Amino acid sequence: MKILVVNAGSSSLKYQVVDMKTETALTSGVYERIGIEGSLITHKLNGKKLLDGEVRNVADHVEALDFILKTITDKNLGCLKNLKEIDVVAHRVLFGGEKYNSATLIDNKVLKSMEESVDMAPLHMPANIQGIRACMKLLPNVPQVAIYDTAFHLSMPEEAYLYPIPFEDYKKYGIRKYGAHGTSHKYIASKLMEYLGTEEFKAIIMHIGSGASLSAVENGECKDTSMGLTPLDGVPMGTRSGNINADVFDKLCEVHNFTNKECLNYLNKKSGYVGMTGSADARDVEDMIENRDGKFTREQQENAKLAMNIRVRRDVQYVGAYFVTLGGLDAIVFTAGLGENDKLYRKAVVDRLKGALGVEIDEEKNSKRGIEGLISTPNSKVKVFVIPTNEELQMAKEAKEVVEASYGLNR
Amino acid sequence: MKILVVNAGSSSLKYQVVDMKTETALTSGVYERIGIEGSLITHKLNGKKLLDGEVRNVADHVEALDFILKTITDKNLGCLKNLKEIDVVAHRVLFGGEKYNSATLIDNKVLKSMEESVDMAPLHMPANIQGIRACMKLLPNVPQVAIYDTAFHLSMPEEAYLYPIPFEDYKKYGIRKYGAHGTSHKYIASKLMEYLGTEEFKAIIMHIGSGASLSAVENGECKDTSMGLTPLDGVPMGTRSGNINADVFDKLCEVHNFTNKECLNYLNKKSGYVGMTGSADARDVEDMIENRDGKFTREQQENAKLAMNIRVRRDVQYVGAYFVTLGGLDAIVFTAGLGENDKLYRKAVVDRLKGALGVEIDEEKNSKRGIEGLISTPNSKVKVFVIPTNEELQMAKEAKEVVEASYGLNR
Repeated sequence: MKILVVNAGSSSLKYQVVDMKTETALTSGVYERIGIEGSLITHKLNGKKLLDGEVRNVADHVEALDFILKTITDKNLGCLKNLKEIDVVAHRVLFGGEKYNSATLIDNKVLKSMEESVDMAPLHMPANIQGIRACMKLLPNVPQVAIYDTAFHLSMPEEAYLYPIPFEDYKKYGIRKYGAHGTSHKYIASKLMEYLGTEEFKAIIMHIGSGASLSAVENGECKDTSMGLTPLDGVPMGTRSGNINADVFDKLCEVHNFTNKECLNYLNKKSGYVGMTGSADARDVEDMIENRDGKFTREQQENAKLAMNIRVRRDVQYVGAYFVTLGGLDAIVFTAGLGENDKLYRKAVVDRLKGALGVEIDEEKNSKRGIEGLISTPNSKVKVFVIPTNEELQMAKEAKEVVEASYGLNR
Repeated sequence: MKILVVNAGSSSLKYQVVDMKTETALTSGVYERIGIEGSLITHKLNGKKLLDGEVRNVADHVEALDFILKTITDKNLGCLKNLKEIDVVAHRVLFGGEKYNSATLIDNKVLKSMEESVDMAPLHMPANIQGIRACMKLLPNVPQVAIYDTAFHLSMPEEAYLYPIPFEDYKKYGIRKYGAHGTSHKYIASKLMEYLGTEEFKAIIMHIGSGASLSAVENGECKDTSMGLTPLDGVPMGTRSGNINADVFDKLCEVHNFTNKECLNYLNKKSGYVGMTGSADARDVEDMIENRDGKFTREQQENAKLAMNIRVRRDVQYVGAYFVTLGGLDAIVFTAGLGENDKLYRKAVVDRLKGALGVEIDEEKNSKRGIEGLISTPNSKVKVFVIPTNEELQMAKEAKEVVEASYGLNR
C-alpha cells in the first residue's frame, strides 16, 4: 500500500509518498509560496534532493498538487509509475472538534463539518480544506482520510479542557481546550510504549520545535496538553508567545493601538524567539548566546540568553505541572526540532529538573548527533528519551487502518 | 505606637487600629457602598461587633473616613481618646511598579508616582489614592505610609517576570509580571521562618481566598508568583477566571460582542466560581456539592463539583510548576479564606499532591476548626502548614519600621 500524505498550509503544501510495506517515505517535498509570485518546490527522492527550491509559479493548491502529482510519477524524479499506485491520501487537518476523535474517511458530511469549523482555526482550516478539495479533484477515485491534529487530546478529562468561565461558553460556542500536534504526540506515545516494553506508564512528551507543545500521557492516553483553544496557548515558540493572559492582551492592544486580530497576529508571528531576539530559529539564538565570532552586540547576546531562559523556564514549569497531574512520572520524551537536535536546549531543561525530579542525563549520549533512544543515566529517577517524531508515518498508518476498516483488507 | 491601617477599595474602606505593643487590632471595621445610596458601616471593638451594617450615607472616602475617625474616638464605640493617639497611617496600595520595593513614606512625589500608574491598576489605584488624600486631609500631621501589594514580588528574576514578547513592550510600557497579595505572602514567609526555625527554606505559599495567588519563596524571597500584570492572572478565584489565554479572550469578545474592557470585566467579575456555579463563595459551592437537603438540581451539583475540580487542578499545577522552579520543596502553606478555613479544599489539594510529592496530612488536624500550624504527618515528604494571614499587622509593622527609620525611634 502506498499512501500520499498531504499537509497543506495557507501558502504551502508538504507531501510524502509512504510505502507501508517498509514504513518509509519514498519521496517527500514541499511546495511554498502557493498563489504568490515566485512559488517554489523542493523535492526529494529516496532522501536525495532532486529539486531544490525550483521556481514554478502556481495560482492555488490545485495547481501545486497537479505539479506534485506529475513530479512523483515522473520517470526521473518520481517513485510511482502512475497515479493508480496511490491507494490512499492522508490529510492533516488542524481542527476536528469533539466530533472527530480518530482518523476519518472524508465524505461530503465530513467536509461540511470542516467548513463549519473554519472559525475555530481560521489560519489553517481553509488551507486544509483546499488541499482536500484539490486531491478530490485530481484523484477522484482515491479514498481521502482526515487525520485530525486535535484527536489525540480528546481523552483529556473535562476539568482539563474546560476554562474557569461560565460553562455556557463551552456549550454554546465550543470554547474549550483542544490542543494540537496530536498526531506527533500520539506517534511518540506509541514509540515510547515500545521503548518501555509496557502500556502502563506516565510520561511527559515535549514536542519542542518552531511550534511547541507538551502533553501529559498516561497509559498511552492524553491527560493534558499545553496548547488550548488554538495553537497559540502554552509554551513560547519560534514566533508565538504561548500563554499570554487576557490583561496583557488588552494592554498590548492599548499601547500599540492594535485591533484584537492585529494583536493575535503579533502574538502568533512576532513574539516568542523572533520577538525577543530577532530570530525564530533556536540555532540562531544559540549562536547569539555563544557569540563565537563576537559579531553580536552585548545586548543581542543578553537578550538571547534571557529568551532561552524564559523559554526553558516555561517549558520546565509545564513539566512540573504535569508531573503532579500524573501523580508521578516514568519518562520524559524530547521530540521535534529542538527536542531531537538541540543538545543545549535538552541540557538546559534537564539541569532545571534535576533538583526536584532527580533527572540525570548521560552528557555524552546527549551530545551525540542524531541520538535516538534513552539518554538518561541508570541513576536518573525519570527516564529521558529522544525520539524523532514522524507525523507523516503516523498519518499514513492511521489512514491505512481507516481504509482497511472501511473497504476491507484486500484493497 | 498605634497605627491606623487603611485598605481602600473603589466603594469600600476597611480599617483597623493596631496597637504595636501587643500587635493586636483594638478596633476594626469596614465601610461599604461609599458614594452609593445605602452606605453602611460595620465596626468591631475588641472583636465585638458594635455597629452591624449601620446605614449612614456618605458621598466619598473623605466623608467615610471622617465618620470612621469619629467612631474610633467615640467614648462607647472607640479605642482611642482622641486622634492624637494615631501615630501613623498605613495604606494598602495595589501597584508600586518597579520603583517601590518596600513600604514608603508618602509625600507629594510618591503620590504623583501613584497617579502616574493609575493605568496599571485602574480598578484599585484611584481608590487607594482617594483613601490617602482623605487621611492627609483629616490627619494632616500624621505620617502616611504606603504598603505596596507588589513590593514583595520584586525579587523575582527577570526570566520570571518578563513575557515572551518583544522586550520593548516591557521597556517602553512596563508590561511585565508584578504579582499581588505581596503583603500577605511576605507576612506568611516570615511566620513560616519562625515555624521552621531557619531562614533557609523552599516553600510554596497558597493564598487562596476569594482572590487567590501562589508564590514560590526561597529563603524568604519571592522567586515567582501566579498573578501577573494585574491580579486577573493565575489560578481561578471567586469571581475571576485567572489565566485565560489571548485566543480565548479574543473568541469571548467575538461571541459575546464584547469590547475588550467588557471582556476584562467578564473575566474579573463573572468568571471563576461565580461564573461556573452561580456563587463566588466556596462555602456555597461545597454546599452544592454535598447537596444535603437535596435543594440543588443535579446539574448544579455536577457544575459545582466540576468547578471545584477545575480550581484545585489549576492550583495544584502551579504547585508542581513551582516545585520544579525551586528545585525542591520544604513546605507548603495554606492561607486566606479557603486556605485557612476550608478543610475540603485543603484535602482536595493534598490528595492530588500525594502521588508526585509524597505529601500527607493528618486528617484529624486538618478537620479541626481554627487549626493553625503543622497539619502534615511526620512521614510527609513536604511539611504542610495552615497559617492565618494578617495583612493589617504586616502593614502596621512595615509602617512602624519606615516611620522609625525616618523620624527616629522616639516618636
